[in-house]
Amino acid sequence: MQKKIVIVGANAAGVDAAVAARKTDREAEITLLTKDRYYTYSRCGLPFVLGGHIESFENLVVYPPNFFKVNRMDLRLETTATSIDTKSKTVEALSNDGTSETFEYDKLVLATGATPFRLPIEGIDKQGVYTLHTLSDGLKLAEAMKTAKSAVVIGPGLVGLEATEAFVERGIKTTVVEMLPTVLPRLLDPDMSSDVQRKFEESGVTFVLGKSANAILGDNKVKGVSVGGEEIPADIVLNAAGVRPNTELAQKAGIAIGETRGIKTNSRMQTSDENIYAAGDCAETIHLVTGKPALPLLGSAAVKMGKVAGINAAGGDAVYPGTLFSWVSRVFHLDVGGVGVTEFWAKQIGMDVVVGKITSKTRASYFPGGLPLKVKILVEKNTRRVVGGQIVGGEEVTQRINILSLAIQNRMNIDDLAKADTCYAPSVCEAWEPIVLAAEIAQRRL
Amino acid sequence: MQKKIVIVGANAAGVDAAVAARKTDREAEITLLTKDRYYTYSRCGLPFVLGGHIESFENLVVYPPNFFKVNRMDLRLETTATSIDTKSKTVEALSNDGTSETFEYDKLVLATGATPFRLPIEGIDKQGVYTLHTLSDGLKLAEAMKTAKSAVVIGPGLVGLEATEAFVERGIKTTVVEMLPTVLPRLLDPDMSSDVQRKFEESGVTFVLGKSANAILGDNKVKGVSVGGEEIPADIVLNAAGVRPNTELAQKAGIAIGETRGIKTNSRMQTSDENIYAAGDCAETIHLVTGKPALPLLGSAAVKMGKVAGINAAGGDAVYPGTLFSWVSRVFHLDVGGVGVTEFWAKQIGMDVVVGKITSKTRASYFPGGLPLKVKILVEKNTRRVVGGQIVGGEEVTQRINILSLAIQNRMNIDDLAKADTCYAPSVCEAWEPIVLAAEIAQRRL
Repeated sequence: MQKKIVIVGANAAGVDAAVAARKTDREAEITLLTKDRYYTYSRCGLPFVLGGHIESFENLVVYPPNFFKVNRMDLRLETTATSIDTKSKTVEALSNDGTSETFEYDKLVLATGATPFRLPIEGIDKQGVYTLHTLSDGLKLAEAMKTAKSAVVIGPGLVGLEATEAFVERGIKTTVVEMLPTVLPRLLDPDMSSDVQRKFEESGVTFVLGKSANAILGDNKVKGVSVGGEEIPADIVLNAAGVRPNTELAQKAGIAIGETRGIKTNSRMQTSDENIYAAGDCAETIHLVTGKPALPLLGSAAVKMGKVAGINAAGGDAVYPGTLFSWVSRVFHLDVGGVGVTEFWAKQIGMDVVVGKITSKTRASYFPGGLPLKVKILVEKNTRRVVGGQIVGGEEVTQRINILSLAIQNRMNIDDLAKADTCYAPSVCEAWEPIVLAAEIAQRRL
Repeated sequence: MQKKIVIVGANAAGVDAAVAARKTDREAEITLLTKDRYYTYSRCGLPFVLGGHIESFENLVVYPPNFFKVNRMDLRLETTATSIDTKSKTVEALSNDGTSETFEYDKLVLATGATPFRLPIEGIDKQGVYTLHTLSDGLKLAEAMKTAKSAVVIGPGLVGLEATEAFVERGIKTTVVEMLPTVLPRLLDPDMSSDVQRKFEESGVTFVLGKSANAILGDNKVKGVSVGGEEIPADIVLNAAGVRPNTELAQKAGIAIGETRGIKTNSRMQTSDENIYAAGDCAETIHLVTGKPALPLLGSAAVKMGKVAGINAAGGDAVYPGTLFSWVSRVFHLDVGGVGVTEFWAKQIGMDVVVGKITSKTRASYFPGGLPLKVKILVEKNTRRVVGGQIVGGEEVTQRINILSLAIQNRMNIDDLAKADTCYAPSVCEAWEPIVLAAEIAQRRL
């Protein structure tokens, strides 16, 4: 008999789960239920359509109808899963036309994603306040940007900063507000984030840091934001204060929720119900440095979790070891990324770390086009193992983050990293790789 | 009493040895002897001056006179070390003006480099036959290129191909000759090198492969090259058939030479004489995959060996673990690199390998500017460990080679690599890193 696999959610985690399930079991009946009205699109691409790097939102649809047909997957758009009966192994779902349908499953994958955090401030529901999480959000914001002269972005995380760049590229005067004193506060230490902030300031962006937005001003339509007594005019307010995992469906079904508020999973992405898996933004995993529960909320983690959940749901055997929060972005031609724990975070969890930091160049000194590259490596003092890294500027930052990620994940110590047999050509790098130099500096401080 | 450190050779390995020695011992007397008439320059930069990417050969002088002054190093240009007396611990050297001088040492570092292999064919000494190994070579070749209409390059290794690009950029019709059937034959397998060859052919370069150059034609001045009966006209012939380590000085002093014809060293870069170290192109080390003696002949290896030799010569304690032949180049905007063993090489040494290969893209499908990237990973069958990698095309190839290098050096198996927590942003990479995808393909074939 055909195995029935139902997947709730059809974005990164959901579709990767479906693809992996199909590869594992050629015969399984695979059904995807999504609230969304659009075929699977790339959420991470939204800011780049706003900025004009990508022509239209349609380009973001990475899995068109035909993909699902070819792979024999039944994708139900505008279909909201409303409840799970774990005993009868069924999911109840409501279509947009009001009809209800029951889906039987042998294995269920929850890839319900996350939703922007509703800021608890006055006026948050006014016209002109946006989020940037779905394709619909993108369409609405793009429309508003056509006439807007000014914007306030609340939250200088990745989405907030990428949207800020888009605003600037469209000639919109933008102020970024954050109650913490730095940009990308959860991802970078202040000595690294200041470089990012400077780049934005050079591009005309104003930052109001260390102050909370108190209220959204205006009658029906947004006129500005009140921040620490000051009034910042704005035609658009973007709430980019972060997202929360969507776990109501799981919770109602009695599935265990973890301390991060994500759905608890084991390394096979199995929830507290052995027939139900979770993956993506809604799923809690462990942090590979701290060993503690963690909620990555990153596309890269979502696809990896989805794949593992899909393989296991289809009867295969795969393991997702956990996350290192590897991330990267490119803003105003500045590459920036990180992995593992930050210095701030290490302090908070009582981990004694030593820092190796260097600013070097990406090409031989005499070769044109080289850029300054700043590398920071964190090493746990008593074990000498690499536990974190941050990079700002330069070229090939993505793969340098991946190098540090590989080192951390494989529990390499700083001496291994300092001995790396790196390659060299004057047109593409320096004879001494900046990561190796930073590692040597850390060694000397241990 | 001040320790006396004498270094023979003042290029990559020699100067990095001097710098490391100075950092290790602030007081030591450091003397560098070099045959060269120029201050320390980057050999790897020579082809890029010829092609016009770098304005002048002077730009390649990375360590100017003042550097040696500030670091209290006595650099003797145009001074050829002629013999070593290991008992009295002295080096005899001959200056260009014919005077001889004796240098006492406590520790000696041999960084004598390599010399282009003299092809054993008729007419090799004719006017118009060049090599590209020293700055003087570069100056002579640049002069010849001013009037040359055609060139033949013998040997499509890294120097040969980088020079070929320079010839093309200067409007010189170029033919590349090689007795083996592929380009970069020692570095890439045919399924990868064919992409490089195609790129050159698209740029107007002709290849005559699988045939040996029999003779250089012309009276005094070169007119062409005879290859397998065919006559190829040429105003310039570049002998890029490779280099041989300079070991005469060591050999005469009774220092052990290894099976690769390089000076034998241990992991501290010590030769068979405990007071004498060797580093760079003249020094034999071990290959980290095969465990066999190896001669890297790469700038990246030279600086690393030099640093270790310098630290140890100055009384410190450092280890050079061996080489993986990590290399990279950029030719006609095509990045190409490799590390570890090739499939061809693995076969030769009786290593049973499995290949994971994929062509993917460097950015999200919808993001402009992404390039095709071809990754090949080699895995030893019985141990599952990663033993080699090759990449052609795309972006961020240098750091991807470094990722594979790190994996090989730390004896990671393919399952570790397939589980890498890579980062993602649509502007700089794909959600699924091509290295991870290639690793998964290899896993399935194991």
